[in-house]
Amino acid sequence: MGDIKRVAVLGSTGSIGRQTLEVISALPHRFSVIGLAAGKNTALLTKQISQFQPKFIHSQDNNLPTGAKYEFLSLEEMASHPEADIVVMATYGKWGLKSTLAAVKAGKRVALANKESLVMAGEIITREAKLSGAQIRPVDSEHSAIWQCLEGEKQKAARIILTASGGPFRGYSPTRLAKVTPQQALKHPSWRMGRKVTIDSATLMNKGLEVIEARWLFDIPFDNIRILIHPQSIVHSMVEFADGSVKAQLGMPDMRLPIQYALTYPERLENPNLPHLDWDTIKELNFEPPDFDSFPCLKLAIEAGKKGGTCPAVLCAADEAAVELFLSKRIKFTDIPRLVGQALEEHKAIAHPTLEEILAADSQAGEKVKQMVGDTT
Amino acid sequence: MGDIKRVAVLGSTGSIGRQTLEVISALPHRFSVIGLAAGKNTALLTKQISQFQPKFIHSQDNNLPTGAKYEFLSLEEMASHPEADIVVMATYGKWGLKSTLAAVKAGKRVALANKESLVMAGEIITREAKLSGAQIRPVDSEHSAIWQCLEGEKQKAARIILTASGGPFRGYSPTRLAKVTPQQALKHPSWRMGRKVTIDSATLMNKGLEVIEARWLFDIPFDNIRILIHPQSIVHSMVEFADGSVKAQLGMPDMRLPIQYALTYPERLENPNLPHLDWDTIKELNFEPPDFDSFPCLKLAIEAGKKGGTCPAVLCAADEAAVELFLSKRIKFTDIPRLVGQALEEHKAIAHPTLEEILAADSQAGEKVKQMVGDTT
Repeated sequence: MGDIKRVAVLGSTGSIGRQTLEVISALPHRFSVIGLAAGKNTALLTKQISQFQPKFIHSQDNNLPTGAKYEFLSLEEMASHPEADIVVMATYGKWGLKSTLAAVKAGKRVALANKESLVMAGEIITREAKLSGAQIRPVDSEHSAIWQCLEGEKQKAARIILTASGGPFRGYSPTRLAKVTPQQALKHPSWRMGRKVTIDSATLMNKGLEVIEARWLFDIPFDNIRILIHPQSIVHSMVEFADGSVKAQLGMPDMRLPIQYALTYPERLENPNLPHLDWDTIKELNFEPPDFDSFPCLKLAIEAGKKGGTCPAVLCAADEAAVELFLSKRIKFTDIPRLVGQALEEHKAIAHPTLEEILAADSQAGEKVKQMVGDTT
Repeated sequence: MGDIKRVAVLGSTGSIGRQTLEVISALPHRFSVIGLAAGKNTALLTKQISQFQPKFIHSQDNNLPTGAKYEFLSLEEMASHPEADIVVMATYGKWGLKSTLAAVKAGKRVALANKESLVMAGEIITREAKLSGAQIRPVDSEHSAIWQCLEGEKQKAARIILTASGGPFRGYSPTRLAKVTPQQALKHPSWRMGRKVTIDSATLMNKGLEVIEARWLFDIPFDNIRILIHPQSIVHSMVEFADGSVKAQLGMPDMRLPIQYALTYPERLENPNLPHLDWDTIKELNFEPPDFDSFPCLKLAIEAGKKGGTCPAVLCAADEAAVELFLSKRIKFTDIPRLVGQALEEHKAIAHPTLEEILAADSQAGEKVKQMVGDTT
């Protein structure tokens, strides 16, 4: 096999997982798929298995036919398997936490798309990565941009400027926001993403979670992270250095670019499928400060991040529950931050929690949000 | 002295030279001035000598009082002196060529602000730098930006996007350009620079010269260098990589930042005098393709660069002569490209020229332009 890297893709049927497999298909001389893990989309997983012929499989669907050709592993077994050179963590929500930790403890190169891992357990994961020598490579376009801008620099960032498209409701007042429907919220202006992330992008919770992620990935204080609305989603983020110089990474809004960089780092490879910026059509790039009044999730996330301990886990769980309630039309769009704020307020934070304490805080918060709605509807 | 780097500043009374000394004054624990070389601005040089107490001096004014405190050197002696750790080449025009070559042959770290050196003799200088191990650190904001974007990257640029403010006459038709005065041309919208460079910025010849510089500094074919007009002068240039990712370097339009980076590289130092970008006031960044019809100097420069040999020297010399004629109101603004084009057309290029052949082509072209005007005015 020589220089071919063996990649395990956890969450292969989701948006990031599918795009990861697109990238791997385009670079067959560099990557092979050693493992695929999916939830219940068995139809797609079956197709992926026949295309990529992985050695290891994980599925949450018991109906997946067991064949002689592949071996079943648990998520953690796959994430830490000695035969996996790179582990792509593209699972959804907190389900990625334990397997991310397994990959990190095994000292893997982890292409991390699962936001919740670092948000909920950033302290544990970064500590374990230091011990094992694991390399966490961000897949989020914003964090990939920051990572690319920091490459080769001798010093840390003085400031990180995290850009945000502003979502489909940029410029909306709180009153107008109260009336938006799930259908409207699911239409993101520039990115192709999963449902939960798309709603989080509309509330800007997604950006708040990214601030917490950035704090852990780049070991930078919250006060040195700034959010800037940039509707075109072409500047994916920026880094300011001690001398005032700013580096930005730009590209078409296409997740395959940061996915590929996480796989090929420190190299960059030509891939005819990746779109290039066309400077004949880009006439302006716009920037504006975020509206913290219309999008209170931003402040909630930053506050939860600053408090630390179990607070970010509560933030994630409460948001997940609230988004689900919104998508099933049981609450209004503006109820999402209200419920998350209430859950955070009622939570008694534990400092430097264990993984078990984090997961307990998570499930309690999810329950609490459902109760709140049960009380009020 | 320990870690203090000794800097020789050639061209210390010019715009870049003065700003270099401003940077050094702000970082006295890191840099000292070992040598100062100036032309005929003896008043300022005398002030600089008393402030920085250099060991070595060069002046083209015989009236500079000789003191016991400093030693007179030729430009080449200063540029290659063993006691100079960094040589800042901020001399004007072709006068910098021989001393740049001396510094490069001596294996120095050369902070290069003198455009003409690389434009006229890029082949010789880059070859000598390879032999001696000299490090050429660009001081131009555009090339510094490209250098910063390439730092840490394992591969060369796939494409360079050189930004240009467009100068004070952006959007002007050729007819309107024919009427502009030296006073109008000397008012640059965003940069603080010397007179010759300011006129070159108004004709866009400056950008054309920068394309040739970039070709040598970054070893990239002309066809992979693109010019993009960006009136705010905040994005100082960009690099596109094989995977389509683009990195940009941004900063306030202030030469002290690229000067300082050329001195402190690979480190970055805080300097309270350097301005930082304020994202509360930056609302948009604009881009447009350059107008090759109104600014024919661009095409002339790129063509001369592609032809190579002695052509870029002819370009420089003809431009220098034409700019002088324009500043003394003997020709129109639009005569600058006309005369340069004519000089290039009449020149019989020599491939892979020696330094002597380059300098001969230079002085012949300067003479020729003066003759042309003698014939027509």
